[in-house]
Amino acid sequence: MSDPLVIFTPSGKRGHVAAGTSVLEAARKLGVDLDSVCGGRGICSKCQVSPGVGEFSKHGVTVAPDALSEWNSVEARYDTVRGLKEGRRLGCQAQILKDVVIDVPPESQVHKQVIRKSADTRVIAMDPATRLYLVDVTEPDMHAPSGDLERLRKSLAETWDIKEMEVDLNLLPSLQPTLRAGKWQVTCAIHRPDDARPARLLALWPGFFEGPLHGLAIDLGSTTIAAHLCDLETGEVKASSGVMNPQIRFGEDLMSRVSYAMMNPGGDVEMTTAVRAALADLARATATEAQVDPASIFEITLVCNPVMHHLALGIDPVELGQAPFALATSDALELPAATLMPEAIHPQARAFVLPCIAGHVGADAAAVALSEAPQLSSDLVLIVDVGTNAEILLGSTSRVLACSSPTGPAFEGAQISSGQRAAPGAIERVEIDPATKEPRFKVIGCDLWNTDEGFDLATATTGVTGICGSGIIEAVAEMRMAGLVDRSGLIGSTEATGTPRITAQGRTFEYLLHDATAEGGPRVTVTQGDIRAIQLAKSALYAGARLLMDELGVDEVDRIVLAGAFGAHISPKHAMVLGMIPDAPLDKVTSAGNAAGTGARIALLNRVERRNVQELVRQIHKVETAVEPRFQEHFVAANALPHATAPFPQLSAVVPLPEPSFNAGGSGADGTGRRRRRRG
Amino acid sequence: MSDPLVIFTPSGKRGHVAAGTSVLEAARKLGVDLDSVCGGRGICSKCQVSPGVGEFSKHGVTVAPDALSEWNSVEARYDTVRGLKEGRRLGCQAQILKDVVIDVPPESQVHKQVIRKSADTRVIAMDPATRLYLVDVTEPDMHAPSGDLERLRKSLAETWDIKEMEVDLNLLPSLQPTLRAGKWQVTCAIHRPDDARPARLLALWPGFFEGPLHGLAIDLGSTTIAAHLCDLETGEVKASSGVMNPQIRFGEDLMSRVSYAMMNPGGDVEMTTAVRAALADLARATATEAQVDPASIFEITLVCNPVMHHLALGIDPVELGQAPFALATSDALELPAATLMPEAIHPQARAFVLPCIAGHVGADAAAVALSEAPQLSSDLVLIVDVGTNAEILLGSTSRVLACSSPTGPAFEGAQISSGQRAAPGAIERVEIDPATKEPRFKVIGCDLWNTDEGFDLATATTGVTGICGSGIIEAVAEMRMAGLVDRSGLIGSTEATGTPRITAQGRTFEYLLHDATAEGGPRVTVTQGDIRAIQLAKSALYAGARLLMDELGVDEVDRIVLAGAFGAHISPKHAMVLGMIPDAPLDKVTSAGNAAGTGARIALLNRVERRNVQELVRQIHKVETAVEPRFQEHFVAANALPHATAPFPQLSAVVPLPEPSFNAGGSGADGTGRRRRRRG
Repeated sequence: MSDPLVIFTPSGKRGHVAAGTSVLEAARKLGVDLDSVCGGRGICSKCQVSPGVGEFSKHGVTVAPDALSEWNSVEARYDTVRGLKEGRRLGCQAQILKDVVIDVPPESQVHKQVIRKSADTRVIAMDPATRLYLVDVTEPDMHAPSGDLERLRKSLAETWDIKEMEVDLNLLPSLQPTLRAGKWQVTCAIHRPDDARPARLLALWPGFFEGPLHGLAIDLGSTTIAAHLCDLETGEVKASSGVMNPQIRFGEDLMSRVSYAMMNPGGDVEMTTAVRAALADLARATATEAQVDPASIFEITLVCNPVMHHLALGIDPVELGQAPFALATSDALELPAATLMPEAIHPQARAFVLPCIAGHVGADAAAVALSEAPQLSSDLVLIVDVGTNAEILLGSTSRVLACSSPTGPAFEGAQISSGQRAAPGAIERVEIDPATKEPRFKVIGCDLWNTDEGFDLATATTGVTGICGSGIIEAVAEMRMAGLVDRSGLIGSTEATGTPRITAQGRTFEYLLHDATAEGGPRVTVTQGDIRAIQLAKSALYAGARLLMDELGVDEVDRIVLAGAFGAHISPKHAMVLGMIPDAPLDKVTSAGNAAGTGARIALLNRVERRNVQELVRQIHKVETAVEPRFQEHFVAANALPHATAPFPQLSAVVPLPEPSFNAGGSGADGTGRRRRRRG
Repeated sequence: MSDPLVIFTPSGKRGHVAAGTSVLEAARKLGVDLDSVCGGRGICSKCQVSPGVGEFSKHGVTVAPDALSEWNSVEARYDTVRGLKEGRRLGCQAQILKDVVIDVPPESQVHKQVIRKSADTRVIAMDPATRLYLVDVTEPDMHAPSGDLERLRKSLAETWDIKEMEVDLNLLPSLQPTLRAGKWQVTCAIHRPDDARPARLLALWPGFFEGPLHGLAIDLGSTTIAAHLCDLETGEVKASSGVMNPQIRFGEDLMSRVSYAMMNPGGDVEMTTAVRAALADLARATATEAQVDPASIFEITLVCNPVMHHLALGIDPVELGQAPFALATSDALELPAATLMPEAIHPQARAFVLPCIAGHVGADAAAVALSEAPQLSSDLVLIVDVGTNAEILLGSTSRVLACSSPTGPAFEGAQISSGQRAAPGAIERVEIDPATKEPRFKVIGCDLWNTDEGFDLATATTGVTGICGSGIIEAVAEMRMAGLVDRSGLIGSTEATGTPRITAQGRTFEYLLHDATAEGGPRVTVTQGDIRAIQLAKSALYAGARLLMDELGVDEVDRIVLAGAFGAHISPKHAMVLGMIPDAPLDKVTSAGNAAGTGARIALLNRVERRNVQELVRQIHKVETAVEPRFQEHFVAANALPHATAPFPQLSAVVPLPEPSFNAGGSGADGTGRRRRRRG
């Protein structure tokens, strides 16, 4: 009788194995992705499979009921103690006796796939750098003396093919007691950056340790620091937290922090200490939220802009403040994580810092590229990560370009007269009736329009406190579409617009969105200055995108992805009305949410993607906006608010108003904004 | 005209190179060992050569006076500033134009040879792991952005073939300022463990930094810690210092320290802290003595016994105190040195800890093996490193065996009634006239015998304070040869020996060496107890050696090497009289001095030897004395003092006395010492 045929599903891998071979061994032999932490000892139960019985016409086999060895005592014990799902077998126990079809359920695959929440169909395949390995270690023999560590290494090489392994001096004291406590069986947490480089022992537990191990994907922004705590085996996000970046006290934007470092001896060290303390706090807070031990965090990945990158690493960012904007280091870094977040996570935890693309285009942009994969896009995609700086990527399978653009903090509600950060009570949605010029709005934390019944009650605790970044964008765009603002960005006078909501403030006008002064609340207006600030920010953003389009020699893009926490809230229609982004069909403008954070999470869960992002960054063509004369030209040219209606007819059922112009009246500004100022 | 022929001496390497090739380039092409730190920029002057002129009949060439390009401005400037020896050229400047013979002087060779002080002819070839490398780094270009570190790496790969290099996070802050201060030229201290593994950047200096870098070879003994500070380029020993091991307060011998760790929670940590502080002090003291900056120390090597090994590494040595004497780790270790000697040397310095051979045979024995190379000996050599424990190696090219033997501290003067450590005033040499039974002796710090004129004056400051290890060995051996002690180790009575220097002490007798009680000094005697202590120690030593001889199936050895600081002072003749070591022709007994320290120095200066010692340790067959029944048998059998005269006639002109026996009188001990005790 010939050797039995085994067919694994869903992979379809098949082959003949000697009768009596365990399913786990057969899977290894045929390269089937079947998990095991205990190496086949019937301890970890990770290798559960579902064998089939009967006719499998698709595969051309009939599986007899006795195709596998009988349910054995190890399985019975496991079933009693922990419960084994109906029809499941332990792959390390069940032996193949006759032709068989064996299904590997998703949770038994090492390279499980994690479905991302966004509409995007890409999935993250699990391939974490740090995993658990159970081994039996040979006991010491004084007649063939060798160290306990050397025997542990030997077992790891034999059982798990881990040939080379580095061990930190700090782990050695616990080695002997752990081996003896586990009666020469130990579970090791081992970091394997890739198969070419030495592995690294991170921790040891006596006997079988089930885990889970955790990882932290960190998006270190100028303003906020966000982290996802993930299960390193399943990929599950167990908690997501955010804290303010404490460096804000040294300067709101990046360049003011660079200046702080330049002007204050030791200022960089001060900022490094502050951000590392915040990272440590965040790690602890996230672990608390997820109800896991912070010491179970063995991996972190970090994405951030170049200035934050340098400050987190303890490097003075002074060179980033002046041409040629030289990074101290640009490649991805692997480090001990404890340095970056002292006393917060496992002391042996490893950090992977994503590579920077250029002096102004950081690891956050690299993470966005990893998440959004422009290099795999068949159509030309523009990806904009809007924050205090905007990171812009443009490309497709043929080529990818990147730049950053100094949009400033206006999009985040700063430098806006009634502006505030996105927080409950902040106006985030605005509509203005083109006929009556009356507004309605929504605030963060409430789904009702302010004109709806119950709004006052629903917002009783927060009130209406101001306007956030997405709110001011909508307000300005709506003012433009309602004929209150002309192409140059000028607000029309009370008379010209015919609404009492427009009032004069000195030589310019402002539009009243909301007046709560009677109840002791704020008066929320959009001033001429606010519109100028938004114009500067959006011109910078547009100019950056335009510069990349020039470089590629194109005038339009196929689709646009808005990334960043803020990008998730921008209304694409309003962004296009303002000319923040190039025109594109509205259904081709999507939000990627916090794509940088997603990129950090991908790198956290899959070590191959760490190599991929390095390769991707090497291939990206960098464009430096700061010294590019065309950037200035585009910037100036982009100052106007191009559209009096939504740019694509399907976006708006409203008949366009006649194009207004409020410039003739000598109201102090012309179509090009800042450049020329009429005197006297 | 064909390409000129260049012949290098002393290597004899030869080949044709294109006319105009520099001597340095030619040397690299032909694999000639010619040093250069600056990579051919005419800065470091390490590549000095002596070109020949005239007839070289041996090589079959005639060298024309214009065989090399003319003395150039770089050489002229160097000569003016620093001086260039007569006839020397800079290899990177002189170009080969015609056939030429070029001598590379020893100081221009990378792999210089260091002559060891001992009579031994072996030399240490210089091949330090850490060296200096000068590179020019490309300036940053914002249009092709990359990190400063990445450009440094590129230059190192191009100029020095350093393909992979790890950089500690702590070095990154200084990278950008250093590159700019050096105008994009920097000298790097780089550690290259071998060519297969990544290099590691240890330090950076702007521009050309001449060095020197230093290394510290440390022999961490139970009682004393000794260190040699060496120049990592020339190998020169610039200072040698020693301090007491502060762990002595936790126990004189190793097992009492293991007990301390077992009995006192945290006792191991306490001992680790103490020994690391002592290592740091020693490093600073040695640097001070050598008048060098402690921060110029970039490498250390460490040899020690297993207990000290574990305590220095921060590992509880408890497992070493009980069978199966399991080491936590036995292989050689590479670590950051700063952990072992906090805040004493360069913070990036690297440590290499030699491998342990077995639970009782440490890295010190491995270092002795490296230094004495029994595996290269064509005759059978017994190497004994005598200290509180004796490390014993036996072997030749065919096989090498090792064991350790618990000799206890008697050989160091402890547990001896008038014993003391080797210090000025201690009796170290003894002779007893076989006829008169009168002694004469020398003390440490004075070359005169006590019977010589001027002895009292010469020793006025120290006096005669006691007897040290080598003194008690000589005293006992001389007593044996003078007929005062019988084969069983028993001291004869006053009557039997016929000398008033023998007096009764209870049921046994003692021999008076020196009486200074009249001047308030000590009475230095050799008691029956002293002889028993020496018998125990020497039996242990002999039994260990004998056990290895059994294992090899031999009854004698061809030569004996006495190693260890103490081994240097033992008189081979007296050692053999006592039966400490197997009989061998006296001219075949040599002292290797501090062979463990020499081994540490070899590993410090030559990275290939680090691999060699690991390979050697793997090949050594370990014999565990603690559980070997034959060890007990040999130990008991070795109790007697075998020789009434020096065992080889040429050692002694004296006619042997009749063999005495003091046992008949019922003096309380018989020939086998401890084992049987006559009652009543």
